[in-house]
Parts: sequence; structure tokens; C-alpha cells
Amino acid sequence: MKTTGGTDDQKRRAGERAAELVADGDVVGLGTGSTAAHAIRAIGRRVADGLDVRGVPTSFDARALAREAGVPVCSLDEVDRIDVAIDGADQLDGDLAAIKGGGAAHAREKVVDAAAERFAVVADPTKVVETLSRSIPVEVLPDARAAVERDVAALDGEPTLRRAERKDGPVVTDNGNVVLDCDFGAVTDPAALSTALSGVPGVVEHGLFVGLVDEVYVGTEDGVDVRSRD
Amino acid sequence: MKTTGGTDDQKRRAGERAAELVADGDVVGLGTGSTAAHAIRAIGRRVADGLDVRGVPTSFDARALAREAGVPVCSLDEVDRIDVAIDGADQLDGDLAAIKGGGAAHAREKVVDAAAERFAVVADPTKVVETLSRSIPVEVLPDARAAVERDVAALDGEPTLRRAERKDGPVVTDNGNVVLDCDFGAVTDPAALSTALSGVPGVVEHGLFVGLVDEVYVGTEDGVDVRSRD
Repeated sequence: MKTTGGTDDQKRRAGERAAELVADGDVVGLGTGSTAAHAIRAIGRRVADGLDVRGVPTSFDARALAREAGVPVCSLDEVDRIDVAIDGADQLDGDLAAIKGGGAAHAREKVVDAAAERFAVVADPTKVVETLSRSIPVEVLPDARAAVERDVAALDGEPTLRRAERKDGPVVTDNGNVVLDCDFGAVTDPAALSTALSGVPGVVEHGLFVGLVDEVYVGTEDGVDVRSRD
Repeated sequence: MKTTGGTDDQKRRAGERAAELVADGDVVGLGTGSTAAHAIRAIGRRVADGLDVRGVPTSFDARALAREAGVPVCSLDEVDRIDVAIDGADQLDGDLAAIKGGGAAHAREKVVDAAAERFAVVADPTKVVETLSRSIPVEVLPDARAAVERDVAALDGEPTLRRAERKDGPVVTDNGNVVLDCDFGAVTDPAALSTALSGVPGVVEHGLFVGLVDEVYVGTEDGVDVRSRD
């Protein structure tokens, strides 16, 4: 379910530009995925040059990459604030509503990104659309799978249990839960769907991010397009 | 945090009366707590007399008690419907909004109770109030504790991490999460608070049950008061 598309150059430009948001002394949310990885590496180079930051990883992979890149990490419970979070997205509309969770890390991502004073998404141009339409990853308590499937169907969605490729059975998240990829077709009212999904018993977290993204850095062939919430 | 108050006779009358709701062939959600336990035992006696049911337990304790009482159990994933769920509540108002989760089982309870065609609460008179006011148990991903505490405070709630008494550190739920008992004082708009809490990133499930309870059986000194949603 990982998103593809976009060149590594585009992703690198977006990630490196967003890394410039980080100021000395900041606590930084470190996102997951190939574009956010460029931001983590760029922050690591700034740390090597003397920048004082602490990173709060959104996932197992982000933590490993931060350590490799030389960014000091700490857990969300150790900080009293997050100044800026930098994370990728699988799809993003003109109102800066986003779909995340292709990598199944969206629960921790949403906690960290929502806790940040400023949340910047890094993306390549293939992620930006007029209307969100990707399947929405929904993290679910394992026991609740069938019940949530029925509730998603009642919301006119089509749920598919995400199966693992390197183990038998379903993908299990870092929190020990399973993921339903839920196809709602074109999502014309992301806010309403977000509220409805949050209210389904057994849903731990869903991949619709509404009202959370403050700005977007889209890497292009020759630069970076920046869009901000007004 | 378990609720006290009410006599065992009151609880028994409520539980036994609710057990009469169960019909031959039904799939029954089996609740948690001292009053629901009376219902499970009464269903067990009916099974001994030939009633054919399958029970879906809402918790570790409900499963153990069902086995002991002779009620055949299965998991939520094995059934395509739940005909009736019988569960307790820590507090209940006149509109049948409830607070549950004193026993930290409210995530699974909400999944099972919400999946049921008919959800009956069993209670003693001390649980029925005009306005809900107990602390609301909120199950939280362990990493998200500090972030959720800040969001609860922003909703004018006062969160307290529930600590265990028979182990060091916090209570850990059957799902591996922690519980914040959140004091909001008098809850004048349970529906709005329920929606707000569901939308907080890192919240797995909260103990406000709004629009889910179909009827209430309150055991009294000499009978059972029944209240139904119109």
C-alpha cells in the first residue's frame, strides 16, 4: 500500500526545504516515509554542524533512521511540546486535508503531528489532488475487525484487511492492531468522514488528517512549491 | 475505580430479568462487572435447561465467568451479528447516555454493545443520575499519554493516569494500553463530549456511551424498573 510516484529528486527537495524550518532548541516530530526520510537526513547534517534539536519519531523506521542520521531522539512522553513536525502524506487536497497510513504508522503519526505547534507535510507532485480518493487506512483492534467492517460498509466504504507480504496473515501495526484499507471513492467531505470514522467503536485511528496540516512543501523538477493554511 | 453501591439483591434482579431477553438461537454480548455477572449466570442456568446460545464476552473476566457458568463462548470475529448485549454501567442518565470503563474493559465493551441489535444495560439504583458526572475512562495508546492529557485539559477535563494496585505502574488494558480517568465535572452535553474525545489522536476508546443503550433494567428492593429508548 506504500505510495509510489514522484522522483527521488522531488522528494529530496521537499524534505530538505522543510528541514530548514527547524530552529535551534526545537523539539521536532520526525515523520515516516521516503520524503520525510530526506528531511531527517537533512536535519542530521544540521546537527553535525551544531544544531541542538531533539526528535520525536513517529514510527519504528523513523526512529532507526534518526539514530543513523545522528538526530537525538526521545519519546513523546519526555517532551512538553513539539515545535514542528515534518511528515509525508499519501494524498493531499487543496484544503490541506490529507490521507496517510500507507505505511500503517498513521496512529503515532497523527498523535505527533497533531501535537506539533506547526505541522509541515512534504510531498512530491503526484500526491496532490483536487479530491481525496485513495483508500483510507483504518487501524482497528484485532477483535473488532468484523464489527468495524460492517460500520465502514454502512458509511458506504469498502474495507479490505491489509495482508502482510513477509509474514502470514495480516499486517500488524506497531501498536499490535490490524489495518483495514477502506475505499470510499471520492471523499467530498473529509471532515464529516473523519468524525464518523473516529466514532466507530474499535477504530484506534484512521488515516484522514483534517485541519491538522499547516503547510505543504511540494518538491518539483526545479524547486519547491509551498502552500500554507491561511 | 470500580463502582460500588447498590445491593447484591438489586443487581441480581436486574441481571436475571435482562437474561430473559435472550431467545433460542441468539448470539449474546456478555458484559463485564458485578451486575452483568448475574445475567451471565442466569443465562448459564437457561443453557443447562436447553437454551441454544453463543456468547461473545466483552472482557477477560466475562469470558472466564461464561465458561464457568456453562455459556458457550465465541469471539466477535466468528459471528455475523449480535442479537442482544447485556452489560453494566457505572453511571446512566435519563436519556440513557452512560459512562462505562470503571473496569477498563470499555473498548471491547463498546465494540460488542454497539454491534448488538439490542443493547440492555443492567444496573442498581445508585447508578442512575440526572446528569453524568463521574470521571470518564479514556483508553490511550501508551506513547500518546502526555499528548492526550494536554488535549483533555483543552476540553476542560482533568486527566489522571489510572495506577495499578497489584502491579507497579499504570493499569494496562486487555489491549495493552493505559487509562486516563478524565474528570469533566457535570457532563451537560454527552454527545458533544463523546465526539470531541473520539477525535483526539491517541484515544483508542472512551467510556461515554451515547445513543447506544436501548433499554435499562434497574433492580430495586422489590422488582425491576425498565426504561426504554422510545
